[in-house]
Amino acid sequence: MAIVVQKYGGTSVGTIEKIRNVAKRLAARRDQGDEVVVVVSAMGKTTDMLINMAKELSEAPSRRELDMLMSTGEQVSISLLSIALNEMGYESISLTGFQAGIMTEGFHTKARIQDIEIDRVKQYLSEGKIVVVAGFQGINENGDITTLGRGGSDTTAVALAAKLECTCEIYTDVDGIYTVDPRLFPTARKLDAISYEEMLEMASLGAGVMETRSVEIGQKYNVPIYVALSSEDWPGTYIKEYDVTMESKAITGLSVSDKDLMVTINHVPYEVKNISNIFQSLAKMDVNIDMISQTAPSHGLVNVSFTAPKSDEDIIQGIMDQILKEFAGAEVEIEKDITKLSVVGIGMRSQSGVAAKMFKIFADNDIAFKQVTTSEIRISYVIDTTDKQRAIEIVAREFNL
Amino acid sequence: MAIVVQKYGGTSVGTIEKIRNVAKRLAARRDQGDEVVVVVSAMGKTTDMLINMAKELSEAPSRRELDMLMSTGEQVSISLLSIALNEMGYESISLTGFQAGIMTEGFHTKARIQDIEIDRVKQYLSEGKIVVVAGFQGINENGDITTLGRGGSDTTAVALAAKLECTCEIYTDVDGIYTVDPRLFPTARKLDAISYEEMLEMASLGAGVMETRSVEIGQKYNVPIYVALSSEDWPGTYIKEYDVTMESKAITGLSVSDKDLMVTINHVPYEVKNISNIFQSLAKMDVNIDMISQTAPSHGLVNVSFTAPKSDEDIIQGIMDQILKEFAGAEVEIEKDITKLSVVGIGMRSQSGVAAKMFKIFADNDIAFKQVTTSEIRISYVIDTTDKQRAIEIVAREFNL
Repeated sequence: MAIVVQKYGGTSVGTIEKIRNVAKRLAARRDQGDEVVVVVSAMGKTTDMLINMAKELSEAPSRRELDMLMSTGEQVSISLLSIALNEMGYESISLTGFQAGIMTEGFHTKARIQDIEIDRVKQYLSEGKIVVVAGFQGINENGDITTLGRGGSDTTAVALAAKLECTCEIYTDVDGIYTVDPRLFPTARKLDAISYEEMLEMASLGAGVMETRSVEIGQKYNVPIYVALSSEDWPGTYIKEYDVTMESKAITGLSVSDKDLMVTINHVPYEVKNISNIFQSLAKMDVNIDMISQTAPSHGLVNVSFTAPKSDEDIIQGIMDQILKEFAGAEVEIEKDITKLSVVGIGMRSQSGVAAKMFKIFADNDIAFKQVTTSEIRISYVIDTTDKQRAIEIVAREFNL
Repeated sequence: MAIVVQKYGGTSVGTIEKIRNVAKRLAARRDQGDEVVVVVSAMGKTTDMLINMAKELSEAPSRRELDMLMSTGEQVSISLLSIALNEMGYESISLTGFQAGIMTEGFHTKARIQDIEIDRVKQYLSEGKIVVVAGFQGINENGDITTLGRGGSDTTAVALAAKLECTCEIYTDVDGIYTVDPRLFPTARKLDAISYEEMLEMASLGAGVMETRSVEIGQKYNVPIYVALSSEDWPGTYIKEYDVTMESKAITGLSVSDKDLMVTINHVPYEVKNISNIFQSLAKMDVNIDMISQTAPSHGLVNVSFTAPKSDEDIIQGIMDQILKEFAGAEVEIEKDITKLSVVGIGMRSQSGVAAKMFKIFADNDIAFKQVTTSEIRISYVIDTTDKQRAIEIVAREFNL
């Protein structure tokens, strides 16, 4: 008898009928003897609908109040799912974030889980109940309701699995992790397993299926994460520690993201504290910087480029306005029609020449790139969005993805 | 600078536009220098919609889960109202029942407020914030979300006013308390003021505007309750301690209710413990008994009649089935097409003859009654619903209501 945490996203609980189907799946799992915790998101488009109501009242609603508002979405799902389970004869109890002991810290609408007081969940499990937990939400030290931002329900699920020392199963509308997003490259292959490190790189690069944070927690606490379809029984993909049974190709996957913009600041007076101040200002506002590159100083001035989420454009614009005031002569350019293309693979550690091959592919096919950064297991390029589709197909073919 | 608690019902916050209007009213009040706490219900038909979703999944959903589900309705309203206030430049903060410290006890879906830990509300008031509290909900000692049953938002508001030692203003879609429900008797007069005792009798008899519990709390803690229109400035009715400035007619009002059914149990063996057991069984299931009458024993058997809410019919039926098993020869009749008609007035204490006049009115007009009960300030009759309209008009005319 094992404990398992399952998570179902908004699409999987989008209607009363779908909630009933999820209940059936949970019941079947319970029948196998497992102790089941299930994390659910808000039904379908509920969160968007709630945000739209708020936006009718205010262009920039208070984030605390938005959290108060949005958290109702999951609360509806958990109670309905629990009712469905009870109706099928399975004892069940729903818990909001605060009832499940999910303590958070940090900004409203993008809080982080600090700890989980897991006793209450454990107690109900020991009573044989299926425990239904609201994803995406928690409570901070002031007793205010917080939400965890994008992919927050996954984070809730993986964090619960970490505390319960069990596997986390993420059921969703995609059937696993692919070498390339199949919507962009239909012949992409599904992976049986991928290492946390590779998944992290792919997630941070916008691979869509899993957000970075939940994978990080999985890695930190060694929680095996299984990603599979919620609608059918069909083998999914395990995200787990790297082992030799995994494919040892140079490149495991190709990630593509249109979600970032690229900021270039030219002619910044070259002092370490200037550059540091820029990134500190961005960090203070919780702007997630990804790629950073800086030119060598020339005439005491440097150019800095970085990528950041398009959703933070307003905040970034504000900080840049400040920078222009501070550094006379500086220029800021914000480019939005860019795509980030990254190849990821643990194999890169042992197999050299991936970078060389990539540069050759781009040169042969006349694809210009605006920025390149590398890590131990990935290489990322910023290209014009107009070159995106062509670049994907060429790279995927060359690396046999 | 006074503190005031205002309450707006579901109709008054039924749309984004109406929420904005409520925000304007609150802002105007704040501008007058008052410290404002506002209690709101769920938007329009939200609660019904939520219950219907639950009913699609289960005919008899767990009451704990229903509370979890329903409480989201108020949570949406408070966050939206707070966003509207912030947008208008008024500092505001929304609080769920548990955040506002509303501790409850008793059954789910009909919990009672046990106490309010008011410090957090007071703190925010002292910071100049308009405090927006979710009506209808609280938290019990297990940390489970509870709801307070019908009229629960009024209860929240009056209980908060009791703790804050201030007036409670209930804004609704009726403009005050009438001698008779104007929907039943269009020429009924609106009262400027009514005593707690009279209002209690009228409320318990189904006068609609205010539920019993909130008036009881008002009476207990001497909270003046003002009932008025939410859509316009128009004088409403004060519910407060009786004083001589109030009208001193024999009858203040006439209450009419179709919400009860009448149960008659014939041929119960006459022992005090038998009758007591019946009512204890009903009390255990939280069935609210109103009128009770019992015939004198004959051949060692008695007949008992009582009225109770139609909404508890299933529970009552269950208990009656038990009674039939226990007492061979007993018979149970449950009548649903009945109306309870009650005249209420503190003046009855000093003016005799009201009962005599009522009996004469019924006799002269050939209206049969099935049960009569009296208290110090009211007389109630159970009649056939078919006689309802005629009885209302005759009684209202005779007592000049």
